[in-house]
Amino acid sequence: MWTFDNPPLAQLRDRYGFVPSTAWLDHLRLSSVRFNDGGSGSFISPDGLVLTNHHVALDQLEKVSNEQRNYVRDGFYARTRQDEVKSTDLELNVLVSYENVTARVEMAVARAGNDAQRALDARKRTIAAIEKESQDATGWRSDVVSLYQGSEYWVYRYKKYTDVRLVFAPEQQMAFFGGDPDNFTYPRYDLDFAVFRVYENGQPVKSRDYLKWNLQGAADHELVFVSGHPGSTDRLDTVAQLETERDLVYPVSIDVIKRRLGVLRAFGARGAEQQRQATGIIFGLENALKAMSGEYDGLRDTKLFAKKQADEQAFREKLSASADLAGKYASAWDAIAGAERERRATYLAARFQALRGSNLAGIAFTLVQYIAEKQKPDGERLNGFHDAELQPLEFSLFSPAPVYLPLEEVLLADALQESVERLGASDPFIVATLQGRPAADVVRDAMTGTKLADPSARKALVASGWPGVVASTDPLVVLARATDPFVRRSLSIGDQKVAGIETAAQERIGRARFAVYGHETYPDATFTLRLSFGTVKGYPMNGTQAPPKTTIYGLLDRATSFGNTPPFSLPARFNERRAALDLATPLNFVTTNDIIGGNSGSPIVNRQGELVGLVFDGNIESLVGRFVYSEETNRTVAVHSAAIIEALRKVYDAGPLADEILGGKP
Amino acid sequence: MWTFDNPPLAQLRDRYGFVPSTAWLDHLRLSSVRFNDGGSGSFISPDGLVLTNHHVALDQLEKVSNEQRNYVRDGFYARTRQDEVKSTDLELNVLVSYENVTARVEMAVARAGNDAQRALDARKRTIAAIEKESQDATGWRSDVVSLYQGSEYWVYRYKKYTDVRLVFAPEQQMAFFGGDPDNFTYPRYDLDFAVFRVYENGQPVKSRDYLKWNLQGAADHELVFVSGHPGSTDRLDTVAQLETERDLVYPVSIDVIKRRLGVLRAFGARGAEQQRQATGIIFGLENALKAMSGEYDGLRDTKLFAKKQADEQAFREKLSASADLAGKYASAWDAIAGAERERRATYLAARFQALRGSNLAGIAFTLVQYIAEKQKPDGERLNGFHDAELQPLEFSLFSPAPVYLPLEEVLLADALQESVERLGASDPFIVATLQGRPAADVVRDAMTGTKLADPSARKALVASGWPGVVASTDPLVVLARATDPFVRRSLSIGDQKVAGIETAAQERIGRARFAVYGHETYPDATFTLRLSFGTVKGYPMNGTQAPPKTTIYGLLDRATSFGNTPPFSLPARFNERRAALDLATPLNFVTTNDIIGGNSGSPIVNRQGELVGLVFDGNIESLVGRFVYSEETNRTVAVHSAAIIEALRKVYDAGPLADEILGGKP
Repeated sequence: MWTFDNPPLAQLRDRYGFVPSTAWLDHLRLSSVRFNDGGSGSFISPDGLVLTNHHVALDQLEKVSNEQRNYVRDGFYARTRQDEVKSTDLELNVLVSYENVTARVEMAVARAGNDAQRALDARKRTIAAIEKESQDATGWRSDVVSLYQGSEYWVYRYKKYTDVRLVFAPEQQMAFFGGDPDNFTYPRYDLDFAVFRVYENGQPVKSRDYLKWNLQGAADHELVFVSGHPGSTDRLDTVAQLETERDLVYPVSIDVIKRRLGVLRAFGARGAEQQRQATGIIFGLENALKAMSGEYDGLRDTKLFAKKQADEQAFREKLSASADLAGKYASAWDAIAGAERERRATYLAARFQALRGSNLAGIAFTLVQYIAEKQKPDGERLNGFHDAELQPLEFSLFSPAPVYLPLEEVLLADALQESVERLGASDPFIVATLQGRPAADVVRDAMTGTKLADPSARKALVASGWPGVVASTDPLVVLARATDPFVRRSLSIGDQKVAGIETAAQERIGRARFAVYGHETYPDATFTLRLSFGTVKGYPMNGTQAPPKTTIYGLLDRATSFGNTPPFSLPARFNERRAALDLATPLNFVTTNDIIGGNSGSPIVNRQGELVGLVFDGNIESLVGRFVYSEETNRTVAVHSAAIIEALRKVYDAGPLADEILGGKP
Repeated sequence: MWTFDNPPLAQLRDRYGFVPSTAWLDHLRLSSVRFNDGGSGSFISPDGLVLTNHHVALDQLEKVSNEQRNYVRDGFYARTRQDEVKSTDLELNVLVSYENVTARVEMAVARAGNDAQRALDARKRTIAAIEKESQDATGWRSDVVSLYQGSEYWVYRYKKYTDVRLVFAPEQQMAFFGGDPDNFTYPRYDLDFAVFRVYENGQPVKSRDYLKWNLQGAADHELVFVSGHPGSTDRLDTVAQLETERDLVYPVSIDVIKRRLGVLRAFGARGAEQQRQATGIIFGLENALKAMSGEYDGLRDTKLFAKKQADEQAFREKLSASADLAGKYASAWDAIAGAERERRATYLAARFQALRGSNLAGIAFTLVQYIAEKQKPDGERLNGFHDAELQPLEFSLFSPAPVYLPLEEVLLADALQESVERLGASDPFIVATLQGRPAADVVRDAMTGTKLADPSARKALVASGWPGVVASTDPLVVLARATDPFVRRSLSIGDQKVAGIETAAQERIGRARFAVYGHETYPDATFTLRLSFGTVKGYPMNGTQAPPKTTIYGLLDRATSFGNTPPFSLPARFNERRAALDLATPLNFVTTNDIIGGNSGSPIVNRQGELVGLVFDGNIESLVGRFVYSEETNRTVAVHSAAIIEALRKVYDAGPLADEILGGKP
């Protein structure tokens, strides 16, 4: 997961005799796209076609579907440009430049002196100022990113696209064949892809940088690259931090997800339309549950944890060897351990004195915070509300995506009931929220009475400013006013007792790591663009070898093996067309590339920079990759370039799209 | 693994509402066949057709092959009865009756008093006498079997067949697709079957009891039965015994196998004919290595071992609750623990003061022992040389199977060299064996000078009696004379200090188990006929679900995934005929039946007693089944009845055989 400013040139030269040029790296970077709702993609044509995963597109597919047209279930293909469907609230980013601003941040922090809270505030103010200055000067979206645990700060500048239209998606059944059981596993047989087209000023964008399609794909053991946006990893966390995750954060989070899934499945069972409305959230939660369960298993694996402890021990012993280094950095671990004790003490209150789960309630709560924060000077606001962040924030707050109030109601009711159970009826948050009424009644009234399902009501609230919030009788706003003080209080305690201390201590550990181990490394993932190299390669699995790739034969085997029952059933269209398919066509393949959630939709390219595959998953052994990467068994799972073209032509009658992808005319 | 005298009728009734009749059980038992070289099978036609695994037939396939005709590589099909090829030394057994003889054995042991050695001798004498009496009275092969750790003794009587002719075998590549990597794993795609025909008096035997073939196979979750001959399990071993296995027996045995495999692969690399000669032994050793590695992993699994300890603890505590039971049985565990200390002390000497690995040397050593033992009264002989055992012993000692002296030489040389390394040059066994010469020279001279490759020379030696042995200058006989005293000494020490004590102690534990847990259980496997019930069922595997069955699609997927390279390549004939195949034909499937090595070739039957599949393997999770069975993941892997017929008709042009199997005329 190397940053593009520090590509692993020496390793690539030594291991593979390949040294990518600056032009090669720039081209790949500028062809890479971030899906701001949590994924990656790439330009694949000079006329703005963007490839990503079906499951990255899923949220948008749902938002443009309704009771009459179910693009999630049935798939979608725009035969002409006029048929392309605009996404409701999708923002794509392309990383156009980056700049190291560490010195400026560090200087501001140093001036603030030794008080952790003042240092944290200074850091926040400086970052907000850098972002705003950069955005004003360049017109590009500008995000300051903390890398190497905060021992480096960079401003990343993005070209931003918000007119993104759907061109093609297969049926979810085909994209997600095998469903939750097969998710995060391999061998796999999924056509998890979707195609958008990016527009600017009403015209398809002329994408100078795009990836040429290579129908052959990559050979076994071939060197390949992934360019994408891994969300987050915790490989550099201290043992004290991992212990909190293992003993508190993971078990609580897993319980929350299981509970919410139960509620959603019951909602979906009410009818076909409810099922459709809940599909995307269920997918997301099942995906999160499986990922977190794998990560949690990793944390509870005594061998893995012993390795983490031994690594930290070895690092600290190296530091001790130098009086200078020890003096500067040795106390950082104890500082974090102390902060973690605070985090444990306040975790349940911070987590359950806030209501998460309902998207609409989340919008209401954020609106109220936004209006309050906007009154303050930029540098004093809560994170997420700085000037440079407001445009994408409003884009999502004012999204015209459909709102399903009964669905929002069951989600919010479950979150509130859970808080009651976790905190007890006498907890001040519960008292303030319920005002003596049953949780179900509070939530029913809120969802029945609110006008905020309509984006224009949200805009009106923002326009009315803080007086408008205070005067509002919209029950969701009333609820937000009741809960917001608790959220702010938790944030403030967290800043003072945990984040302030840990941010400073982590920066020191980051610098200590550079001092001891040098700069030949990459930082933890931060949902910023990264380059990963690896090879196509099977792996030892359950007593035998997992193959480097799978074929359409395997898809038919697995469907037939399970009697063609969900989630192993094939769409009717596929069954009708299967006689026309070349069953030996490679379908999915695995590589040793190091990825994590957020990389979904990333292109896989060969030495020529040609697209040979599309990342869509990691195997079960990759889940522990949040904490430690193992080349032995950690694998990226990808859709093969040939399978996409074969399916477009022979299953979906989408020859023109296949032609355009392959470089013919659209 | 229930004995046919104690079938689990209550469990079957309660769990499945099915109570097999005595006729149903008798029919299944009389249709079941034991392959005495280590496998199972079943009659599948009224004219003596017997179905088993290719890998059970492998030894015989090799023995009837030569440089010109390679039935292992190319397969075999006898289009007419005249073409059927007689096996060189295969004995099949059918269990025709059994009788509990516990009282007689126990009485003899009780009369011998408290001395362990005298008790052991008395037991041995009584067993030999029972076998001989039974054989003389009935004409049937009669084996006394010790069950439930010796707390029951039964005489099992077998109808014996030694004219067994090969009818059909596919290419090994097809039977063992996936090779060593896929061995003991699932999903699988193997046609691991072979067909023999049993003759008597020169005519196909009229097999009144045979299994009707069911082309549909068994449905997902259907109740099915396996009738076969599991070799051995160690589920009732004490913790002290398991510790010796874990700390000594397994690591040493695994080292021996790895070493021998290295030598065999080097031998096979000399040329195609050497490769052919070594194939079967390599298969057997790789198979043993993978099985033992899985078992060893199980023993080193701290959870599994803790469960074993807890179970033993719980059992002993239940005993303590009754003063009567405690007085009788409580000391048995300590007796075994003491004997295990002796076993550990003498294990390496016993193992390496004997030369194992060369089949021909093994024949020579056994011949010399046999001639010596035959002079003694039946009851005083070493095990394996009692009157009732002599006929099958001679059948194997005088086998006309081809002997490849260069192969025997490398195997014996490696065994001798290993003993030198393990014991040291000054060990008396090494001194006596080498007589001051290099190991390689001793072995080369032995293999160059021996006449025992010819069965008639072996017969002549037996005919010459002990004086002949003493006078013989055959270098393998000379070697046998040198090594035999050491083997006898180890056996004697083992009898006195280990076997004698443990046999008596295990009998007590077996009785204690009946007293505490009742008789609703089955004994450890003893290569005697057992009935296992279970259902067709996938299982959780590596993050997802393993399917209940696979199809020919899957075979093509796996072959294509690995670029059709060995061991994932398909025979030319299969590739030529694949267009004719129904690719959705079920190929392999898994069931929850409890089996272990020796069950290979067992029929799987449905409630109607019809054959729906052919056991050929267990999954990787089943290997730990030697010590403990888990219904959650332990699976039997079987060839589907439909795949065999599909392949016979469409790949092998063996329609007449398919017709005969399905009940048409041969």
